[in-house]
Amino acid sequence: MATKKHRVVIVGGGFGGLYAAKALRRVNCDVVLIDRRNHHVFQPLLYQVATAALNPSEIATPIRKILRGQNNVQIMLGDVHGVDAAAKTVLLEGAAVPYDSLILAAGATHSYFGQNHWAIHAPGLKSIEDALEIRRRVLLAYEAAELTTDPKGRSAWLTFVVVGAGPTGVELAGALKEIATHALREDFSKIDSGEARVILIEGADRVLPPYVPELSLEAENALQQLGVEVKKSARVTNIDDSGVNIGDERIVAKTVLWAAGVQASPVAKSLGVPLDRAGRVIVEPDLTIKEHPDIFVIGDLAAAQSDGKPVPGVAGAAVQGGQHAARNIALKLAKKPLEPFHYVDKGSLATIGRAAAVADFGRIKMHGFIAWLAWLFIHVFLLIGFRNRFIVIFQWAWSYFTYERGARLITGDSPPLLGPGATSYKSKK
Amino acid sequence: MATKKHRVVIVGGGFGGLYAAKALRRVNCDVVLIDRRNHHVFQPLLYQVATAALNPSEIATPIRKILRGQNNVQIMLGDVHGVDAAAKTVLLEGAAVPYDSLILAAGATHSYFGQNHWAIHAPGLKSIEDALEIRRRVLLAYEAAELTTDPKGRSAWLTFVVVGAGPTGVELAGALKEIATHALREDFSKIDSGEARVILIEGADRVLPPYVPELSLEAENALQQLGVEVKKSARVTNIDDSGVNIGDERIVAKTVLWAAGVQASPVAKSLGVPLDRAGRVIVEPDLTIKEHPDIFVIGDLAAAQSDGKPVPGVAGAAVQGGQHAARNIALKLAKKPLEPFHYVDKGSLATIGRAAAVADFGRIKMHGFIAWLAWLFIHVFLLIGFRNRFIVIFQWAWSYFTYERGARLITGDSPPLLGPGATSYKSKK
Repeated sequence: MATKKHRVVIVGGGFGGLYAAKALRRVNCDVVLIDRRNHHVFQPLLYQVATAALNPSEIATPIRKILRGQNNVQIMLGDVHGVDAAAKTVLLEGAAVPYDSLILAAGATHSYFGQNHWAIHAPGLKSIEDALEIRRRVLLAYEAAELTTDPKGRSAWLTFVVVGAGPTGVELAGALKEIATHALREDFSKIDSGEARVILIEGADRVLPPYVPELSLEAENALQQLGVEVKKSARVTNIDDSGVNIGDERIVAKTVLWAAGVQASPVAKSLGVPLDRAGRVIVEPDLTIKEHPDIFVIGDLAAAQSDGKPVPGVAGAAVQGGQHAARNIALKLAKKPLEPFHYVDKGSLATIGRAAAVADFGRIKMHGFIAWLAWLFIHVFLLIGFRNRFIVIFQWAWSYFTYERGARLITGDSPPLLGPGATSYKSKK
Repeated sequence: MATKKHRVVIVGGGFGGLYAAKALRRVNCDVVLIDRRNHHVFQPLLYQVATAALNPSEIATPIRKILRGQNNVQIMLGDVHGVDAAAKTVLLEGAAVPYDSLILAAGATHSYFGQNHWAIHAPGLKSIEDALEIRRRVLLAYEAAELTTDPKGRSAWLTFVVVGAGPTGVELAGALKEIATHALREDFSKIDSGEARVILIEGADRVLPPYVPELSLEAENALQQLGVEVKKSARVTNIDDSGVNIGDERIVAKTVLWAAGVQASPVAKSLGVPLDRAGRVIVEPDLTIKEHPDIFVIGDLAAAQSDGKPVPGVAGAAVQGGQHAARNIALKLAKKPLEPFHYVDKGSLATIGRAAAVADFGRIKMHGFIAWLAWLFIHVFLLIGFRNRFIVIFQWAWSYFTYERGARLITGDSPPLLGPGATSYKSKK
């Protein structure tokens, strides 16, 4: 107790920060993990909360609970707004936390390509709050369509645009079309939810650009079979409260969701070191910063290279980065040289609707129902906590066989639905 | 299609409105059910969401889903702000809905006995949003206590006051003490959550004033065994952001919850008819209003009498009132005289913590584990939807055997925890 232990501060309780903390379990150091939220979010399933299939607590677990058994970790709820690298201190509102080693794993946020005013019209999907906001907007759109007698107004409420056809965009679009076709079908008396249009817009010339072309094609086929309209090589030039522009084309839609760009957390800027175009910190092969060898940067916040190739911004890379930073800290404490990071790609998976998916495990590429089963088992296996796993399996099995969506609640403040675009209920007769 | 059907408008999708709509299934009329929310809330279990045991969607079900099979019902999402009884029209923001018969089931809201400025310091528990706000405050209080080094500040964060010892207050206080003693016990490194104080304040001379005195005594014993401090015959004279006054006594507490008074929905006022002190509409024996025989008022909005005794503001009375209003509408359509309402008391139940309860089924009065089992089965049985029932049983069984709380998430905007009362993390060494 008398000797001062090496203190590792971790900023961020996502995949990177959490796995770094776990990997420091047997290292002789004190760990302080700081996050703005009290929970870790299993981000790959966020779109299922946004589309009313799962509850927040089924994909989010309190960080304190995950790390409960680990005695050398302290958890702190707080919003980190910068790092004073000269003073070796992390800066929070009203507090400063000193470190000996720092692991920055603050992740990324939405990027609207400099058009920040699009944000209110097209929310992105990064947090539980984001997912609940999207769920609220989607469910309210159907309620508004039911109350609107003007056909144009109704069709604007029944048009859903997803910008960006990466894994999140593809999964969101598929799930949106699926609830329109099934879960909501019998809920309304004046509209047919099956008529809802879901339009997926992608700037590249194929969906899922990070995947191999053959799986992009399979994914696009599956989306089209579901009824999702896919627009490729399409650049969004404007978003406002009634729709989206793609050059000269105007899509009238009351609900627009953003799954296009991400930008590193602004914490990166406070370091005063070179960043890449997405605002990520350019790190050394051992994941430290050249100017600050005590700072490790991992996950979506880092522009890292592995064997000459850029490390992708996916959950698996964050997990491995966190574990590697922890190992390097252990080596440092043992006065051994740090090791370079080697990212091992364990494969990519994306689902399209209820029973289709594409998967790329390097030599093995799959699509259709088999890929979907693989996706299901891998995700359930990775979900933290037996209890969550059990409930999620039950919810999925239930919605698979019944087409039901359990979490179809509109919470938060509802805007008045009956605006100038809607008509009085009276005129319906 | 050519003949215009009798149109029944129901305001409110709580127990009263929902059971009225269901009872009108076979009556030859059109039903329009209007609610501000898209979901019905099973209010008796709201405190379990507030104390992180259950998820919102486990006790809330979309109204459209509940009434899906019923062809003569239309559901409308909207905020009713008044009734124009002369024009036989319900008034919403931007819309007006005409009725032939009206069932008002808008319920009640919190009443702060004229001290409305207490509301921000002491939230009540009526909606899912309320429950999530209470959950957020309670969980944040422990996080703040963990970050506070000043013992006085820490104890203020670890003191929880519940005002009002009716069923909601008793159940909230019991659950708050229980999570302090069990679920949160291993989560924190600097505080012992078991030291948290839970103080229950009641103006009457016993807890659960509507129950028979012997069960009040049992409930108080059970609360004290759990460790809840009960203050009876205590009138709250002030609430601010750092505590509660009971006359000269000051209780320093950062978290105060309101379970004391309720007041009828302001919709009642717009009728221009006599109201009782709690703002409820005084109704005839057949549940209509003397001045407006086409308007039925039920549930917490009505001051009704049954066999010379006031009908209590409980879920069972709302259900029976809704069914009775529907029956009287059917009689009216058949040109038969309306019948007076007879309330049948099917018993009262309240739980105290993990395995104790008190129950009053008239001749049979129970307490302890047996009463808790009765409570469990009755509530699970009444929960709407098989899927919800299954998941709730599983969650309960899980938390019963593990003392875990599954839904321990802080969502929404967090206030900065480290204010003037807290100290920098630095000073901890």
